[in-house]
Formats: sequence, C-alpha cells, structure tokens
Amino acid sequence: MELFAFVNDDLVPAGQASLLVSDLSIQRGYAIFDFFKTLNHKPVFLDAHLERFFHSASRLRLEVGKSQDELGEMIGVLQRKNGIPDSGIRLELTGGYSEDGYTPPTRPNLVITQKLVKLEIAETLTRSLRLMTYEHQRQLPDVKTIDYLMAIWLFPLLREKGVDDVLYYWNGIITECPRSNFFIVTADDAVVTPARHILKGITRMKILEIAKTQFRVEERDVTVEELRTAKEAFVTSTTRNLLPVTQIDGVPIGTGEMGPVARWLNWEMYAVVSNGLL
Amino acid sequence: MELFAFVNDDLVPAGQASLLVSDLSIQRGYAIFDFFKTLNHKPVFLDAHLERFFHSASRLRLEVGKSQDELGEMIGVLQRKNGIPDSGIRLELTGGYSEDGYTPPTRPNLVITQKLVKLEIAETLTRSLRLMTYEHQRQLPDVKTIDYLMAIWLFPLLREKGVDDVLYYWNGIITECPRSNFFIVTADDAVVTPARHILKGITRMKILEIAKTQFRVEERDVTVEELRTAKEAFVTSTTRNLLPVTQIDGVPIGTGEMGPVARWLNWEMYAVVSNGLL
Repeated sequence: MELFAFVNDDLVPAGQASLLVSDLSIQRGYAIFDFFKTLNHKPVFLDAHLERFFHSASRLRLEVGKSQDELGEMIGVLQRKNGIPDSGIRLELTGGYSEDGYTPPTRPNLVITQKLVKLEIAETLTRSLRLMTYEHQRQLPDVKTIDYLMAIWLFPLLREKGVDDVLYYWNGIITECPRSNFFIVTADDAVVTPARHILKGITRMKILEIAKTQFRVEERDVTVEELRTAKEAFVTSTTRNLLPVTQIDGVPIGTGEMGPVARWLNWEMYAVVSNGLL
Repeated sequence: MELFAFVNDDLVPAGQASLLVSDLSIQRGYAIFDFFKTLNHKPVFLDAHLERFFHSASRLRLEVGKSQDELGEMIGVLQRKNGIPDSGIRLELTGGYSEDGYTPPTRPNLVITQKLVKLEIAETLTRSLRLMTYEHQRQLPDVKTIDYLMAIWLFPLLREKGVDDVLYYWNGIITECPRSNFFIVTADDAVVTPARHILKGITRMKILEIAKTQFRVEERDVTVEELRTAKEAFVTSTTRNLLPVTQIDGVPIGTGEMGPVARWLNWEMYAVVSNGLL
C-alpha cells in the first residue's frame, strides 16, 4: 500500500516526498521535529506533542505558519488518506530553502509522514535493555532538533560493547538516552528522573503523573554513582513506552530483571494509552 | 542562467536537485560536506579538499562509492556544464535513505552543487570583523559535518551584540569560528593558531605554510586571556581567504586596524591562489 505524506500543503506519495538540497536541514542540520503514535486511529497525547513541536520551533525561531488546530486538521487528513490504525506520525519543520545555504529564510518547510508502528505490550514485558554510559551533552537539549550525530556515530561502539543503547552523562550527572528518558528506582523506593539538560519526553511526563499516585517521585540530578545502588532502572519514550534497563556498563541493575515498579508503571501506562484515557 | 547539480550520478537542474525526506540528513542531521572555490575555471586546492572530504566520510563511516579521481571527473563535468569561471563548489555526502529514519543504510547520497562566488581582494583589504566569544565545543570537531545548529541559533545574539561572527572557546581555550579558523599574532611576533578540537581548514594549512617562511609559527592552545595581549588577530576560510579581526567582545585587538602580518599574509595568499600556484 502506498502511503502519503505532506510536504507543506501538498499531499504526495511518501516515496516522492522530497526537499530541495538548499534546505537548511540538508545544508546545516537546522530543523526540529516531533513524533507521536496513533492507536486504533486515535493520536496519543496529540496536544502535548503539538505543544512541544511549537516550543521547539519557537526556540529555533522557525515559524510553523499554521495554528495547532490547523496542524491537527492536516494530521486528520493524512490519517484518513492512509487509513492505518496503529502508526507513528512524524512532523518536521526545517530551516527552509536558503539562498546562501546558511542564513535562515523566513519560510520553513513542513513535512508530515506516517508509518506503520505497533505498540506491543507483550514485547515491552519481555524485552530489556543493556546500556553503556557515554559522556556527551546534547546542544539545546530542551529542543527536539534533528541533531542525532553522536547517537548514530556511536552505533559501532554499542555493537562492540554488546549493548542496546547509550546513556549520556555530563560532569558525572546522568541526562538521557538519545531517544528516551531515563529513570531509576532508589533503595527507598523513590522514582527518580533527571530534571535538567534533557529533552522532556511526553511519555516521561505521563509516567511521572502515574508514578505520583503510588510512589515518592523526584525530578533532580542523578549521578553516575547512584546507578550502583538503584533497585531498578528503565527508559520511557513514545516508541518504547517503558522498557526496563537491566544492565549498565556491564553491571546488573538490582536483580538484573524487570522490577515491580517498572512492571506496574508499564501496565498502568499501557492501560492509559490503550483505553483512550488520553 | 540555469545551473546544474549532481544528485548521485544524475546531472539535474539545480532548482530540482532534491533528496527524499527519508534521507538521514533530513531525519537526523547525519551528513558531511566540503567546499572549495574555482578561480578562472581552476579548482583551488582541490586535492586537499577531496582528501578532507574522504576523511570526513570515513569518520562517519559513509562510503563515498567513488575514488578521488572519479569525484574529480564529476566536478569537471559539472564545471563544463555550468561554465562559471569563479565559483564555489560544494560536495555533500549524507547518511542516505533510511528505512526506519535512524539506522544508517549502506548507500549514502552524494550531492554536488556549484554557485557563483567571487574572491575580491579589495574586499578583504577593506573589511574587518568584530567577534564575540561563546562557550561551545563542536561535536566530532575534526569532521566537516553539517552540524551548524549552534552557529545559526546564535544569529540574533550576534545582531544584538553588534558583531559579525562568533568565536568558540571551551574551558578557557579558543577553538575556532563556525566557518573559519582563528589566528593571533603575539607581542613577540609569533603567528599562533589553535591546534586541537577544531576543523583544520585548508586555507589555515596554506596560511601556516606561508607564515613559516617569515615568522615563528605555533600550533598550540590559545587561551581567552591571550586575546588581550595579541597584536593582531585574523580568521581564514575558503570563502573569506583571510579577514582581520579588529575587535573581540567589544575590546580592540592591537591598534584596532588590520595589522602588517595579516596584510602581508593576505597578499601572499592571494598571489598563491590567483597565480594558480596550487
């Protein structure tokens, strides 16, 4: 089945969705994006994602050129055209076509694509992640830019170390994974997640809301040393929902298995998402 | 006049040169490039630029898919097609079309564009730059990636401070400007330029060669404090050749005018470039 995509106001076959090479994303890596799921045709946490999209655009001084409602309407058009119930929808806003390949023009380019994605609770209950720490601080961390240079560059090191993903830290303070937020459960059962120099994920926000109903929750600096005494660790993201982290730098976290807090949060989150309690 | 460009092996009108939005440059800012001038149809320092292009590609594990000679031939074809004597030619190699928008495929995309650019010695002898320092370290600094996020993001701050460009430093050590290398002339007439955590420019290399014939030359760490006692400062780049820096953070450098060392180097460099002593 041929899927469609928006390039600005044009609905085009996804396989032909393109940008001229003078676009500042291609010339200078200057663009922001956001990504959300649809479940049974229903966008998950759409308002939160659109708000963050507008925040990112504004931080890079890119004019979206549409209201949040108008974007929502375009997303609806795309969904009806493509007819995929469970999907991932990606909105990107680039620096636009630049005469000199450097100076931002006043008209960014907007690209909206949709892909088949399935959220499998079964997978998230059986899979776990091994991470390696790496010292790196993303630039403009509160902005969802397209800068994943370091993450992609690190792929071979991940393979060499036999791990699934990287966990960034800077000056001894844990921040985030390239595409997900990081949590620990401390020895005294507090659910703790980094507060600064990170991209604040929508799933992170929802997990914090759920966690607050049952646990002490702390948004604060988490040191690399604290990983040693953590009972559990997990990551959250739109794609992954919640996945337990059972090993960091070759050292098991807690029992080395998915812990009870992560399991409970994962089920609660799954219920929120799949019951349409959005 | 309609110019042409290469997208992989296809010579296309530049106004139609495009990449699909699944390209990793658009999705994740993953791409490298290089840029050189032609003067009277002759590429300037072509071998040095191609060598650096291959170095950048290799550091990002991107297969150019062509030899240096084959690239040289494509550049020749493009030059003959476009017929512009004085130009800038840009080669870019992107992460290629990625199925999942994250994992690098094995086939990068190659884009070669040409633009009208004139090197005006008169301009470089009358223009000078005011800089502001800013604490930032580029990631993978020895690779000419498309990551100019910080540089473009800083535009309004430059305007606000009334300066022409930014000079990056990190932990008190000067590195480079976003698109040029930085030099000082010390009180005892040494020509000094940062050695580490920078992109080593081709013009920087040539200026060092010329400077060595007349001055003591040092490639070493330059501290922010050393700016205060410098007699001269200047930047070098393919586009700018050599431009004097007369003010940094509002403080004049030396006399606040172009100094004799910069003036001499600029003329010598201009002679090398324009006499085809390449």
